[in-house]
Amino acid sequence: MKPCEEEEEEGRAAAAGGGGGDPWKECAEVAVQLARRAGQIIRKALTEEKQVSTKTSAADLVTETDHFVENLIISVLKEKFPSHRFIAEESTAAGSKCVLTDSPTWIIDPVDGTCNFVHRFPTVAVSIGFAVNKELEFGVIYHCTEERLYTGRRGQGAFCNDKRLQVSKETDISKALILTEIGPKRDPATLKLFLGNIERLLKAQAHGVRVIGSSTLALCHLASGAADAYYQFGLHCWDLAAATVIIREAGGTVIDTSGGPLDLMSCRVIAAGTREMAMFIAQEIQTIHYRRDDEN
Amino acid sequence: MKPCEEEEEEGRAAAAGGGGGDPWKECAEVAVQLARRAGQIIRKALTEEKQVSTKTSAADLVTETDHFVENLIISVLKEKFPSHRFIAEESTAAGSKCVLTDSPTWIIDPVDGTCNFVHRFPTVAVSIGFAVNKELEFGVIYHCTEERLYTGRRGQGAFCNDKRLQVSKETDISKALILTEIGPKRDPATLKLFLGNIERLLKAQAHGVRVIGSSTLALCHLASGAADAYYQFGLHCWDLAAATVIIREAGGTVIDTSGGPLDLMSCRVIAAGTREMAMFIAQEIQTIHYRRDDEN
Repeated sequence: MKPCEEEEEEGRAAAAGGGGGDPWKECAEVAVQLARRAGQIIRKALTEEKQVSTKTSAADLVTETDHFVENLIISVLKEKFPSHRFIAEESTAAGSKCVLTDSPTWIIDPVDGTCNFVHRFPTVAVSIGFAVNKELEFGVIYHCTEERLYTGRRGQGAFCNDKRLQVSKETDISKALILTEIGPKRDPATLKLFLGNIERLLKAQAHGVRVIGSSTLALCHLASGAADAYYQFGLHCWDLAAATVIIREAGGTVIDTSGGPLDLMSCRVIAAGTREMAMFIAQEIQTIHYRRDDEN
Repeated sequence: MKPCEEEEEEGRAAAAGGGGGDPWKECAEVAVQLARRAGQIIRKALTEEKQVSTKTSAADLVTETDHFVENLIISVLKEKFPSHRFIAEESTAAGSKCVLTDSPTWIIDPVDGTCNFVHRFPTVAVSIGFAVNKELEFGVIYHCTEERLYTGRRGQGAFCNDKRLQVSKETDISKALILTEIGPKRDPATLKLFLGNIERLLKAQAHGVRVIGSSTLALCHLASGAADAYYQFGLHCWDLAAATVIIREAGGTVIDTSGGPLDLMSCRVIAAGTREMAMFIAQEIQTIHYRRDDEN
């Protein structure tokens, strides 16, 4: 799809305050309602038998719930905001192009932690991010089983339920708890790199490395100060969009694994409480190559 | 300490029903009360600044809360059950011998997931196991932040709050979610073996490997069917005692990493929903040597 000029104009005007003092307030409120509603559906589905299919690899799973929840979220949003665009995990898997324009764009992961969901491992989230003029405006992440709602709005802070989030101020790797995720590629060379990176951080005397199976919830732990850094290769813009706003509003750093600025479509990230910690990780880890989200 | 013959006699008589139809009912009830009380203390302490010390390695942490909670649990139990014995994490670290006799023995981890606790990573538990005649009678594990109480009594099933637990029936590694933990030793040879074991299981196409930072809560996930197998080298009898009863009562298998019977003092374990899955893991993983709990 080519960008629609009218929509881009709308985005710019609203971002500049043309639609009132808080142009995306209604969008953010709808996102919270939808995340909670989707969370209820997922929580119920966690107790039921599932039909599981695979996508890019035997470890890249999808269920009927992923499709159902994504369709629900997008259909409600399309009705309320007919000019907005959408980037969402299952639509992309089905062939929709994954291109971020200047238009108001919703970036959605209906069930983050699908492998956990399939196993009823209770670490599963809904993630809804929103960008205008390619800038992330807000993010909403709902932990389905613990009923924790993480929200962040640009310039307005980040919260878990009603509690303000604040990242860790740790700069020393030898006092750090690090989070990462395996990613969908499981060929021997990728596994060597993935495990080699953990080895480097443990040799640098990190307190520990955790792998919980949900990128968005790991990033929420980072935002809440419960971990000092997160890095991953092979995650997607829908894993990152909402969490990036939340982490930045909690005082954290989100960068590319090269140490440069975050590229939302690059399928790789380092997030940390401090810039020093993020840069240390960037220097330690080796790159695992994944195709960009916007390459088709 | 040498075993006390009178206490051993008491244990045998009670285990045989000499003390009534349900000789350890009161003990199990007190364990539940204490686990909840300890959990409240830990939950409150999670929000506070901590004084952290190290034990066997830079990654083997202990806080004032570990000591406080252990002392609280043991002092209450000693008053109620003056003839009983105790094996507990911090007492052992302080030099108490770790020997399981036939006497009624409480096996306690006051704060499992101390590294998580230090980082306020909300995966922390209290674990209280109880053995008589070297046989595990019951286990109580309390997830401090999610307020989930896992209990298991020999012959009476396993529960999370009021819900009966049932392990996964999966036998196929390519459909399995596996849990493990890093363990306290971080020398290069140990890290190679630890990461090599994960590599073997991912190459065998396991859906995923999770590392959550609490052995007891990982074992509770296994008991609830949310994962298909758990293995670890370098955990202790106080990580295993309560969870072993819970898993067995949920229908699961708990064995030595060699594939033979569990040895509670051997600092290594495989637990799985099925014997087939446990034996597959036993064949795949390489041994990481740790000193036994009862070696001094």
